[in-house]
Amino acid sequence: MELINKDRLWKTINDLADITIENQPWTRRSFTAKYNQGREWLMSEMSEIGLEVKKDEGANVIGRLIGTEPNLPPIVIGSHTDTVPNGGRFDGIAGVLVGLEIVKSLVEHNIAIKHTIEIVDFTAEEPSEYGLSTVGSRAWSGNLTKEMLTYTNSDGQSLSAAITFAGGDPNNLFKCKKEKGTIALYLELHIEQGPVLLRNNANLGVVAGIVGIQRYKISVDGLPNHAGTTPMDMRNDALTAAAEMTLALEKAANGEFEQPVVGTVGVFNNFPNASNVVPGKVEFAVEIRSISEEVIEKVANDFLENVDSIAGDRNVNVQIENISRSSSIVVNDEIKQLLQNSCRKVTDSVIELPSGAGHDANQMSLLAPVGMIFIPCKDGRSHCPEEWAEKEDLYLGAKAMLNAVLEFSK
Amino acid sequence: MELINKDRLWKTINDLADITIENQPWTRRSFTAKYNQGREWLMSEMSEIGLEVKKDEGANVIGRLIGTEPNLPPIVIGSHTDTVPNGGRFDGIAGVLVGLEIVKSLVEHNIAIKHTIEIVDFTAEEPSEYGLSTVGSRAWSGNLTKEMLTYTNSDGQSLSAAITFAGGDPNNLFKCKKEKGTIALYLELHIEQGPVLLRNNANLGVVAGIVGIQRYKISVDGLPNHAGTTPMDMRNDALTAAAEMTLALEKAANGEFEQPVVGTVGVFNNFPNASNVVPGKVEFAVEIRSISEEVIEKVANDFLENVDSIAGDRNVNVQIENISRSSSIVVNDEIKQLLQNSCRKVTDSVIELPSGAGHDANQMSLLAPVGMIFIPCKDGRSHCPEEWAEKEDLYLGAKAMLNAVLEFSK
Repeated sequence: MELINKDRLWKTINDLADITIENQPWTRRSFTAKYNQGREWLMSEMSEIGLEVKKDEGANVIGRLIGTEPNLPPIVIGSHTDTVPNGGRFDGIAGVLVGLEIVKSLVEHNIAIKHTIEIVDFTAEEPSEYGLSTVGSRAWSGNLTKEMLTYTNSDGQSLSAAITFAGGDPNNLFKCKKEKGTIALYLELHIEQGPVLLRNNANLGVVAGIVGIQRYKISVDGLPNHAGTTPMDMRNDALTAAAEMTLALEKAANGEFEQPVVGTVGVFNNFPNASNVVPGKVEFAVEIRSISEEVIEKVANDFLENVDSIAGDRNVNVQIENISRSSSIVVNDEIKQLLQNSCRKVTDSVIELPSGAGHDANQMSLLAPVGMIFIPCKDGRSHCPEEWAEKEDLYLGAKAMLNAVLEFSK
Repeated sequence: MELINKDRLWKTINDLADITIENQPWTRRSFTAKYNQGREWLMSEMSEIGLEVKKDEGANVIGRLIGTEPNLPPIVIGSHTDTVPNGGRFDGIAGVLVGLEIVKSLVEHNIAIKHTIEIVDFTAEEPSEYGLSTVGSRAWSGNLTKEMLTYTNSDGQSLSAAITFAGGDPNNLFKCKKEKGTIALYLELHIEQGPVLLRNNANLGVVAGIVGIQRYKISVDGLPNHAGTTPMDMRNDALTAAAEMTLALEKAANGEFEQPVVGTVGVFNNFPNASNVVPGKVEFAVEIRSISEEVIEKVANDFLENVDSIAGDRNVNVQIENISRSSSIVVNDEIKQLLQNSCRKVTDSVIELPSGAGHDANQMSLLAPVGMIFIPCKDGRSHCPEEWAEKEDLYLGAKAMLNAVLEFSK
């Protein structure tokens, strides 16, 4: 007997995606009226099947199916329903609505399980207009500080006011903060947002961890000389130096390591940027991501050594600013095994892979064991209107996650 | 007996430089009231020593000392008195006022020569607010077209109106257009605007020619992917491709050639320029300069072959736009010899070098044999307030150029 209703799942995803700003599909920015409308729809879907529904102080939407042993800490299945501007129909939405479909199918088939299950739509996972992401899951982990609540959008409205508008109670955030150990398991299904599943012809991915990120800002100072009158051997060209550094990062990240790693120069600004002036200054931003902190360290050291020697060889000055370092999250072996088994019951083509992007699971890892399942997305693309996941893959993912819930709660 | 008055030359340079926009030294932009004021000063200096003074239809200021054989075509000594914004005290000015000092000394010492000498302050040599440079010398060579006269500045005023404001007569430009052969010799002294004389401990430079310039615009199109979720081997990174191309240009220009050559990427724009996005597009501007057309060709071909192979290896698309190609100007051996001899009479440290920048001499080469003398400038810098030339070097340059005039007109 199939518990998951494939068509129903697909319909709910389309119903929620359709709640979008007109002429700008698919946009449902956090802290807007359209966002509230989408969550009203979600709460009514939850109520219809008899869940206990509420918004907490962080404006997180929670639908609760009480287990047969209500004193056990709950299983939380979550993700988010906000989008980036001109985003897609699946990023976040898929995770919330797969959770909803799982409890719908349990209710429909009168399957009682021991653990209470909470389906959570975390507030504002995407970078919000207030300069902060994963707002709701931060409220749970305690990482939503009073200072953050004073952040403002371009209209000068505070994040605190925005949370109130979304139905939260920012003055009493402490009430929704969770202690470690009060959640049995956090599960999140998400589109991969990358091409790895497609390349491996895999239907499902078990996430091995979420990458840590090391960010640097590099400033290269040369001398802005006349491009016609300065011989090649008398230049202090900031651009050719920065170009060589960019390639050094690529080479470092292309080394052989025990875990995948990526190194990216995404921002690259050249000054004075005039066709007849040898560039005097370049500023560029570097990111290194891996689930292995050791690999990040190796690539960073290799890169930074090269930066120094290139600057020396080319007689330019270099300033290296350590912008931020977020730690990687490693999914524990027990959870990985649980999800592997659950996925393999529905398809043979399952791989393990790291998540290169952050998720609400980052905050949840501070509170509970976390597990994530990835489904493929077309061309590996997301955060764009073309973002697409197949109905069949959503179905397989929902079935696998239901298997995991049933197995965990046995 | 010294003909050139070192102190007088130095004083005139400072007097003219001091006619600058307040609080923004040293600025005397073409087609402004301050520019007109400077040229009024120049015309009164010319009149004082009995030159025939006029502004022609191109608003060029001309001071004429009639020779003993007035039917001979004249020797023209010229340069310009406009500056870039926040420019220097010597670029252009030095050439005009060395010319003025030469005729002053001839008049003062009653030295008659065969050829008529014209000291010319060509209108708007620097890139003007109307998007055109060498406006006045173009009027002479016939390269100031009717279309160019319709170019406007940011206030919507036309170049035609600007020339009128400067004292010209744009409707009768044909009257000041010269035919080839109607000028015996064009001479221009200029600061080098580069570091080559300094590096060689040379007081004077005989310009071997003015470089030709090949310009390209290169567009590299990759795919803008998520920097976290796209493995290194699945990227189409436009930035790393463009970085490799930039280094390929540098390498090509660093080859061994029969003439100096420079290759520069001055403009470099990265898109979308976000720290967590693998760059999807880079546009950059390439310049190759040499007095040898053949060397330009070699470097360009080497570079373009590399661009193609890098694009192929990295699976990005590349568009190469041939923006412009200006031909180099080669100073003929006779004039080079004349200037070498004239320079060596005043100093032993003379070298021959190409001019990496364009000058009014570019237009004049279409009409007459041209010769240029370079004097050193501090740190090789120009187009900035720190631009500096030594009084002694100006003196040596003036003496050398006077020697050349006397020798040529013997």
